Amino acid sequence: MNSYIAIDWGSTHLRAWYYCDGVCEQARRAEAGITRLQGRPPAEVLEEITRDWPRQAVPVIMAGMVGSDAGWMNVPYLPCPVSLDDLAARLTRVDKHGWIVPGLSLHDRENVNVMRGEETQLLGAARLCPASYYVLPGTHCKWVRADQQRIVAFRTVMTGELHHLLLHHALIGAGLPAQVADAEAFRQGLETGAQDRSLLSRLFEVRAARLLGVRPAASVSDFLSGLLIGHEVALMAETFMHPQPTPLTLIASPALADRYLQAMALGGLSAQWLDGDRAFQQGIRSIAHELDH
Amino acid sequence: MNSYIAIDWGSTHLRAWYYCDGVCEQARRAEAGITRLQGRPPAEVLEEITRDWPRQAVPVIMAGMVGSDAGWMNVPYLPCPVSLDDLAARLTRVDKHGWIVPGLSLHDRENVNVMRGEETQLLGAARLCPASYYVLPGTHCKWVRADQQRIVAFRTVMTGELHHLLLHHALIGAGLPAQVADAEAFRQGLETGAQDRSLLSRLFEVRAARLLGVRPAASVSDFLSGLLIGHEVALMAETFMHPQPTPLTLIASPALADRYLQAMALGGLSAQWLDGDRAFQQGIRSIAHELDH
Repeated sequence: MNSYIAIDWGSTHLRAWYYCDGVCEQARRAEAGITRLQGRPPAEVLEEITRDWPRQAVPVIMAGMVGSDAGWMNVPYLPCPVSLDDLAARLTRVDKHGWIVPGLSLHDRENVNVMRGEETQLLGAARLCPASYYVLPGTHCKWVRADQQRIVAFRTVMTGELHHLLLHHALIGAGLPAQVADAEAFRQGLETGAQDRSLLSRLFEVRAARLLGVRPAASVSDFLSGLLIGHEVALMAETFMHPQPTPLTLIASPALADRYLQAMALGGLSAQWLDGDRAFQQGIRSIAHELDH
Repeated sequence: MNSYIAIDWGSTHLRAWYYCDGVCEQARRAEAGITRLQGRPPAEVLEEITRDWPRQAVPVIMAGMVGSDAGWMNVPYLPCPVSLDDLAARLTRVDKHGWIVPGLSLHDRENVNVMRGEETQLLGAARLCPASYYVLPGTHCKWVRADQQRIVAFRTVMTGELHHLLLHHALIGAGLPAQVADAEAFRQGLETGAQDRSLLSRLFEVRAARLLGVRPAASVSDFLSGLLIGHEVALMAETFMHPQPTPLTLIASPALADRYLQAMALGGLSAQWLDGDRAFQQGIRSIAHELDH
């Protein structure tokens, strides 16, 4: 099937692409993530964002938090290890033409984890930029170990959400002026975070450094970003990536890719970068193709 | 001076004790921490909580965030290393009878830190329960290294604030039912946090475990508390307490003392417990005594 509608429906945003004969005809986005629906039925929101598109003639393939208990329908997770080739056969139908891609879960002795949405990016990445390890930064950054098409293990690091919490809800972010981009503060944060495994005892120093005039108050955001990402990459390289993590694909937006590639370079990791949107759309394309059969 | 008013004025609470000839005559508390004054002048709030006490006849000794830029007056920190014996001579006068105890700061190549309020507890603890290491749990837990009366180094771990942020502002706390005390969940958290240094990748599992039904939704708070405290104690024992941390005094409320003593026992650390209020009041008593001279 070369004509379909792809939907990336996360916690905060909703994005839609209409493909006709393999070509993307139109793309739309709305601030209508599943935590922002305010009681509106998902079906109604989908109708609106797909207005003027042949919604009743082509499959609508959705991935992300739309499949959670707070979304359209609670779609069961596929337990790992699992082959990405199974995704297309395990869609959940929500109406005549609408399908939701299942998330993945992991539950072993030392790790309990879930993902929704990233599995679709992984499917695309496995085609475009195959690797043994994948890293998908964001609110909840996923670190994934794969064996060919098979997802063997993954972990979640709440890096993006912690940055937001600390800056907007914690004392270390209280009373800050408008934040500015500060590449040097970011780099200092990276180095501190990578060198010192005691992140918890480093966080408060962000506030102390400001009180004592050691660091500009407008650079707290970028320093903190470096601290968290530097720590995350050093920690995961040591605890999750074994043996030697080659090859590694970073699936991210350009802005986040830049930050993670810096952190990885500092730790001696080399990674190929694949744009997150491109990975997602390739993933949906692979699934749509399977719907033919 | 055996007659004085002791004031513990923190971010959220204000507590006051009136001592007459060495005996505590009355104690009062108010939800009037310096973040809750809503524009009321601190002098006015102090008048109110000390009503009927001989406010103009005895010294009023205050410690805590009252000495911060958001408090009554921004009292300069005493830089470490510093002797606790110096505190009484370095008070800042705010009016005829009112004094604020200075906080401590630290700024060396690998650590930038501040404390306000804990220095007074440390002064009391050095008298009541002297040790080489002190741990003061709370919103921002302090780990302190001392050489007799001299404070040599300290670090801050945001354990209490992180627990609050994660439970009340993060996705892992979203939609939880009322939380119940669950000693077993706390113990499991302790063990997980102590064994695994990759705390950042453990936090999200709290949510995953709930989604997959691995842990009761009402026990998230206690599990998370164990996870954070277990991680903190293991981390600080390894990175901050060297050489062998003997003796160690834990300065805490009974509820927090119980949690930290469990975590310390798990890590093979033995500690003497000193009640936090008792330490504070002994600290003020020592300072009041010096005001005689």
